[in-house]
Amino acid sequence: MNHNTVIRQATVTPSMSGFNAQLYARIGDWTWDAVSSACSTDVLTARTVSGDPTYLAFYYFHAQCTGAVHPHRLSFGDRIDVVSGVFAAGGDSTLTLHRLSPAGTVDPTAFHWREFYGEPRPDCLYVENFNRWVARSAADRNHGLERSSPHDFAHEHLPTVPRQYYAPRLCVAARSSGTFRHHEPDHLTIARGYTVRRPVDLARDFNPVGLMYFASYFSVVDSALWELWRVLGRDSSAFLGRRIEDQKINYVGNADPDDTLDVTLTLRQHRTDPLGEVLDAVVRVEGRLIAVSTVSYRRADPGPDRP
Amino acid sequence: MNHNTVIRQATVTPSMSGFNAQLYARIGDWTWDAVSSACSTDVLTARTVSGDPTYLAFYYFHAQCTGAVHPHRLSFGDRIDVVSGVFAAGGDSTLTLHRLSPAGTVDPTAFHWREFYGEPRPDCLYVENFNRWVARSAADRNHGLERSSPHDFAHEHLPTVPRQYYAPRLCVAARSSGTFRHHEPDHLTIARGYTVRRPVDLARDFNPVGLMYFASYFSVVDSALWELWRVLGRDSSAFLGRRIEDQKINYVGNADPDDTLDVTLTLRQHRTDPLGEVLDAVVRVEGRLIAVSTVSYRRADPGPDRP
Repeated sequence: MNHNTVIRQATVTPSMSGFNAQLYARIGDWTWDAVSSACSTDVLTARTVSGDPTYLAFYYFHAQCTGAVHPHRLSFGDRIDVVSGVFAAGGDSTLTLHRLSPAGTVDPTAFHWREFYGEPRPDCLYVENFNRWVARSAADRNHGLERSSPHDFAHEHLPTVPRQYYAPRLCVAARSSGTFRHHEPDHLTIARGYTVRRPVDLARDFNPVGLMYFASYFSVVDSALWELWRVLGRDSSAFLGRRIEDQKINYVGNADPDDTLDVTLTLRQHRTDPLGEVLDAVVRVEGRLIAVSTVSYRRADPGPDRP
Repeated sequence: MNHNTVIRQATVTPSMSGFNAQLYARIGDWTWDAVSSACSTDVLTARTVSGDPTYLAFYYFHAQCTGAVHPHRLSFGDRIDVVSGVFAAGGDSTLTLHRLSPAGTVDPTAFHWREFYGEPRPDCLYVENFNRWVARSAADRNHGLERSSPHDFAHEHLPTVPRQYYAPRLCVAARSSGTFRHHEPDHLTIARGYTVRRPVDLARDFNPVGLMYFASYFSVVDSALWELWRVLGRDSSAFLGRRIEDQKINYVGNADPDDTLDVTLTLRQHRTDPLGEVLDAVVRVEGRLIAVSTVSYRRADPGPDRP
């Protein structure tokens, strides 16, 4: 195995599963752990040259779900193999690729970035994390975070993936159009610009260093979708039964504890396959963009015995 | 060490820290793990004699925080020692006691239930979990869960603690009065019966087996407190800076995905020490009680340079 790779086995427990973002939260830990292992810095306690804390913030999170290892389907006692590879992305960033597979089904040592970008295996969950080192530019303020690497961050030795796969370019386009999926005439818009406005929830959204937690953004989007779901008169079991196929988010900014979030949703449905939907979510604070996300999923099939 | 005890070391990561209930969620995993280890059953995959899933549900969760290992203060990279002991509580229940201490400060093999109930050390976090095996009485319904132990649950060999410490008696009194703290003339009520009404949040509240997750109840209570906090015109930093001293919750029932929660709060303040407060929270679904919780905490001292 390469020096940039970490292999682990995991048994799914309550704290890393469910319909919220707990699995993604755990994958985020694995990203930090893999980078710590590959880059000579302890990400949990990283400091800049001047001694200030610096955080390996999430810039882009992409999950691709082709089969059994599905974020909403993993349940108590399920066993998975996880391979995490860290790749070069410049002096202030990292790219980490994770593959989660049912225990014992895929050789964990056989993992190549090509698999992620073009040749995914069935029944695996692939997660791509592009992260950037950031520090606060002013104490107690989460707006205007600045790039700032730890003094001991080693990255020159890391393998690379072709530049065309790097997230920043994708993200620029998503930010300007509010979606990661463009020009899809086979989809019909069924809700446009539905906005949920709510204060930051200090009881759920923040991490212990006083920043909005990357995994909370998923929950903020999903909670807003659940509200739209009810407005559309839809069923809770269809919400819980969604099968995520692809989920991308670009983290553009952070929030302060007194901020109010505006989450604007646009929902599209496939014209000939109405269980297939695409959700775009744009999160803003007082007009300032803090995240863009696009989720493709299939609603649960209501089955023949239901209307 | 006794056969009923599990010792572990943990390094605090983002997914197990923050102002939400992520640390408690992780402690819940440790309860299930300790019971699996002590009682010959795999709690994650437990089945009744008839082959139905049974869950080691949380009936009572009590956290006592005397110092440095504090749920809101544990941050990235902090290292803790955890000792978990499982005690007898009958054929359908377990009692698990956890002590979390800063790494290397307390001999992990020296742990006795007396320490928990009467002689707590400073700088430790003590958590008591009383759990009951329950199964669904009807498929797809979370109301009316029934007691139901796994076929391979061994408990006769477990040590005991004196009956007077068992939670059920405490909980009966709390359910009838809506608080775990009675008759406190040194406290002044500053908000009585403030009710937050909100639908179950399917994006955050549920676990993968379709039950409301025990750790979500803490977040439901804390989110309601944060709403009351803003109604009272209070500061976000004082909310984030709260130091929990004692937190008890009795889980009385579960919720269905279409339920709406009514969270009723009563807030009391110490007459001569106004930073010390006691919150009572009663959670109901259509009048049916599902939880009672009492939290004692100190608000952050605003300090001399602030009004």
